[in-house]
Amino acid sequence: MKIKTPTLIIDRLKVEANIKKMLDKTGSNTIFRPHFKTHQSAEIGDIFKNFGISKITVSSVSMAKYFAKNGWNDITIAFPVNIRELDDIAELSSTINLNLLIESSDIVNIISQKLVATSGVFIKIDSGYHRTGLTYQDTEIDNILIAISKCDNLVFKGFLTHAGHTYNAKGSDEIIRIMEESSLMLNALKEKYIPQFPEIITSYGDTPSCSIAENFDDFDEIRPGNFVYYDVMQFHLGSCRLDDIAVVVACPVVAKHSSRNEIVIYGGGVHLSKEFISADNDFKLYGYIVKLKDGGWFDPVPGAYVRSLSQEHGIVKLSKDHVENIEVGDLIGVLPVHSCMSANLLIDKSFIIN
Amino acid sequence: MKIKTPTLIIDRLKVEANIKKMLDKTGSNTIFRPHFKTHQSAEIGDIFKNFGISKITVSSVSMAKYFAKNGWNDITIAFPVNIRELDDIAELSSTINLNLLIESSDIVNIISQKLVATSGVFIKIDSGYHRTGLTYQDTEIDNILIAISKCDNLVFKGFLTHAGHTYNAKGSDEIIRIMEESSLMLNALKEKYIPQFPEIITSYGDTPSCSIAENFDDFDEIRPGNFVYYDVMQFHLGSCRLDDIAVVVACPVVAKHSSRNEIVIYGGGVHLSKEFISADNDFKLYGYIVKLKDGGWFDPVPGAYVRSLSQEHGIVKLSKDHVENIEVGDLIGVLPVHSCMSANLLIDKSFIIN
Repeated sequence: MKIKTPTLIIDRLKVEANIKKMLDKTGSNTIFRPHFKTHQSAEIGDIFKNFGISKITVSSVSMAKYFAKNGWNDITIAFPVNIRELDDIAELSSTINLNLLIESSDIVNIISQKLVATSGVFIKIDSGYHRTGLTYQDTEIDNILIAISKCDNLVFKGFLTHAGHTYNAKGSDEIIRIMEESSLMLNALKEKYIPQFPEIITSYGDTPSCSIAENFDDFDEIRPGNFVYYDVMQFHLGSCRLDDIAVVVACPVVAKHSSRNEIVIYGGGVHLSKEFISADNDFKLYGYIVKLKDGGWFDPVPGAYVRSLSQEHGIVKLSKDHVENIEVGDLIGVLPVHSCMSANLLIDKSFIIN
Repeated sequence: MKIKTPTLIIDRLKVEANIKKMLDKTGSNTIFRPHFKTHQSAEIGDIFKNFGISKITVSSVSMAKYFAKNGWNDITIAFPVNIRELDDIAELSSTINLNLLIESSDIVNIISQKLVATSGVFIKIDSGYHRTGLTYQDTEIDNILIAISKCDNLVFKGFLTHAGHTYNAKGSDEIIRIMEESSLMLNALKEKYIPQFPEIITSYGDTPSCSIAENFDDFDEIRPGNFVYYDVMQFHLGSCRLDDIAVVVACPVVAKHSSRNEIVIYGGGVHLSKEFISADNDFKLYGYIVKLKDGGWFDPVPGAYVRSLSQEHGIVKLSKDHVENIEVGDLIGVLPVHSCMSANLLIDKSFIIN
């Protein structure tokens, strides 16, 4: 197959290795419910299925519908319920085991009235990220539980958090500390409410802590997502080696500027997203550069990176030697800064190797 | 129509006003060849057509194919020729008037050998942006012209630049200075080569300078694109008023955190893109907030903005009063920071009002 335009190449062997490593760390008392927002792909889903995984997480109703259509029947939508989509949610709940996220008692009745079949609900806890959720001491938790108890079609499943502040952590010690704090909060809640709801569990997410932790024994369920592909951001956080990154964006070289050691690639913000890593000295990194080979790609080229992105163009900085070895019309690979965003943008322009 | 998920609303009246204003400033000796990468929409293209516009710019072969299929037959692909797409380019050149961009003599023959019909070529000049193109003194220009002269199917059309460094300018004085410098370079080249190529023109792009300039008499052609929609970035550059912004992303409210004056919207990086405006004090702005009304939206809510984006979530900062007036399930509008990116992400989730 000849690549003509920016294309996401997914290395099945690396995907399998990343899944296996996470699964091996998951003890028999912990449910592994991977987040499928990263890949949004039935084909990648099948690789998970081969590992015996049957429960998944998604972040939108449309993703839940897509994976339900592709044979998944135990799905948590880890996003506050969008009541404008209640018709779709109701339909889903009548065909699969569906779990919803709630953080306010006001909408419990609104949801319950629409549902035709039973649905599970988690209460979303904010363990410090401050995006969504209730603090673990919030009295609204009791209000929600009272409301749920009055609804025949809602089953309280437990407490869930996404510790997204691990992405801002300075080093692995802080990531582990965040994970331990989250465990304390979720388990305090579980202990408090388990007499009343004997089946409840704690559910924890995020790739940085699940990658760095040695085990997940403190949680009943984990929901990392990005680990299936990893990316340059995760490498910077210490979650993976560069060699673990399972996706690369293949980009045609369209111009060469030897005088400033740069090449221009067809590969811009609409392919890689505008996400970047920055340093104090005005340095911006939109991706590392690899050379492609049959069946995969080599280690990153030292000193080579995408320094800026327009809508369709990327500007790659290289050493003098490397610029001279690249010609217009060549293909080079970009290890993306955020693989979830690139995968979303290139969902119809991707293929799996190996 | 009930909006259930993040949706791009396009205000036809504002689109028409933005086009009319740009057209009114374009003198009869200057070609108005708008860049269609911003909207990528045949329907918006039709609005341009109603104004008598027949020549357009795009930034990819796939966009050129899309608009050719939708009746446009004079298209400049303002992107260095991707020789991996030469088959498609050759096919296009046999059905429409096509202009290509060249910045190296090496690929002139490669292109010429593939083309079946005649194609126009512009030489891309770098007027200071340093993304692509040759400096106006580069001797490679002569090499390209010698190579083109030997090819029966290539017609040299002139010199083209995109002054993208206006986006980093500090104020309108600097933007106008960049435009004047670009004019000096392009016109020096035109003067030098017009005895040999009597039909050549100068072609200039970018929304900031075309918005701020009073006229375009110094150029034979202008190619702004973003102006059709504008966005918060253009407002910050002084290119437009907030009221000129012709698109808004309607987002469902999914959670409310009164204690920190925030709401959570269904509207994240996969809808708005991760593009932001930053200030020194760690402030990041991913969009302004407007309330929606029949047939449009109100002025931006003072002090309200999107402070962070995940894949599907947006966090909106508001004043206390405004938080209290918003309920889960409401729709709010986000004026995007970069409308080209949002339009690309929501291309199948958009509609036109008015």
